[in-house]
Amino acid sequence: MRVAFQGEPGAYSEQALFEYFGAVESAPCETFEAVFEAVATGACERGLIPIENSLAGSIHQNYDLLLRHNLHVVGEYQLRVRHCLIAMPGAALSAIQKAISHPQALAQCASYLKRRGIQPEPVYDTAGSVKLLKESGARDTAAIASRRAAELYGMQILEEGIEDNAENYTRFLALSQTAVHPDGEAKTSIVFTLKNQPGALFKALSVFALREIDLTKIESRPLQGKPWEYLFYVDFSGAAHEESSQRALDQLGEYALMLRTLGSYARHRGD
Amino acid sequence: MRVAFQGEPGAYSEQALFEYFGAVESAPCETFEAVFEAVATGACERGLIPIENSLAGSIHQNYDLLLRHNLHVVGEYQLRVRHCLIAMPGAALSAIQKAISHPQALAQCASYLKRRGIQPEPVYDTAGSVKLLKESGARDTAAIASRRAAELYGMQILEEGIEDNAENYTRFLALSQTAVHPDGEAKTSIVFTLKNQPGALFKALSVFALREIDLTKIESRPLQGKPWEYLFYVDFSGAAHEESSQRALDQLGEYALMLRTLGSYARHRGD
Repeated sequence: MRVAFQGEPGAYSEQALFEYFGAVESAPCETFEAVFEAVATGACERGLIPIENSLAGSIHQNYDLLLRHNLHVVGEYQLRVRHCLIAMPGAALSAIQKAISHPQALAQCASYLKRRGIQPEPVYDTAGSVKLLKESGARDTAAIASRRAAELYGMQILEEGIEDNAENYTRFLALSQTAVHPDGEAKTSIVFTLKNQPGALFKALSVFALREIDLTKIESRPLQGKPWEYLFYVDFSGAAHEESSQRALDQLGEYALMLRTLGSYARHRGD
Repeated sequence: MRVAFQGEPGAYSEQALFEYFGAVESAPCETFEAVFEAVATGACERGLIPIENSLAGSIHQNYDLLLRHNLHVVGEYQLRVRHCLIAMPGAALSAIQKAISHPQALAQCASYLKRRGIQPEPVYDTAGSVKLLKESGARDTAAIASRRAAELYGMQILEEGIEDNAENYTRFLALSQTAVHPDGEAKTSIVFTLKNQPGALFKALSVFALREIDLTKIESRPLQGKPWEYLFYVDFSGAAHEESSQRALDQLGEYALMLRTLGSYARHRGD
């Protein structure tokens, strides 16, 4: 099986891909759009995209892409993001003066780097920083990236888990051309819009509350240029083909201006 | 008046600051934490922090800082993010081979750069890229940053609004040691947690629906390490001191495990 992801080999998305799918072939893509294309055209059987991070929030662009394409969400995976300080084999931690990585990774390790007196220096991405370091061969420089990136380039991990905030999780969604019907503990992701009326959301949520269906995510997103309209992202417990879910979705369809079921999939509990 | 913001002079946050506060003194801070500290200690009368972006989502870290500090939200501002292609005075657009900026800004202009055959190269931040360009004096290189950064460093704007997606807005919140009681069209921001029971959120939202109070934002955030607990961010129309708001908040307080009113403030309509 071929699975598309956005980024370079060794990116956190690729790490999530191997942890979730096991021994598959990974297909790096330059953009998220290209991941969707790869699955839509059949070049890859699956795609894996990040949808939210515990520190940085939901990735609206990927929700937009989900709405623009006719793919199905068929799985989820929670990756604990653990940044590694990576150096040339044999280089000593005490000799490291400079750390290169994506600015977001550098920012997430800012206190650690300050404490060690290491100067941060931005480059394009996390996995790419390991590649650059290997090419330069510098022994006073470290890269900050995933364990997988270190292994891929045969580099040394000086320290693992150097992020300042350990509560750093990214949730990924698996995409496919065809929907799945999960047994066991499942979740369903939907997107809908509502008329702008007081209590419209309350009415919409009643379709779940009255059936004791648990919501695991709710998020409103203002539609720019339409100051009073909102998109809602909702995840709920259960699969869409179960009777109570089906009834709830039917009833929601009566109120909603637009309603799209993105997919049902097995729930991932994470750590 | 002194107003704290995170970033370098010329950052988008500083542009928002001047558009919102007018002629004030801006105080650059290295981190968001430092912005909160500056206001909490009285070093600055106000702070301005980004809280959500239309493409990238809510900035959970700033919600966390709001919960950890006893400051009040006293205003909001929606900034339309318009990236500028900035060059040395007199440099020609046709001579530009390379563009430097923060990776997020480069990514947001990726199609534009590709179309023009300009190579992206990451640096630490948007405003900093203009400073670097000025220092180097390179006439084949452009920086991508705000109009304000170009003006600050006396540089030339070759093109404005080069972002691929025009629906790029960042919402900022103004912080102060003391709360305000806005007249006219107001909004209130609250944060709360609920017991994990089916229908708990539905019950919580009923306090607004029954009083026909409009919600302008709702977002759940899973609490890591507590797989069944959620924080909710809600913004609603009206000021907390109005009678119907007060009654709604009193009633919500009966259900919520934690409830914090972050502040009431005049609504900003944006474009």
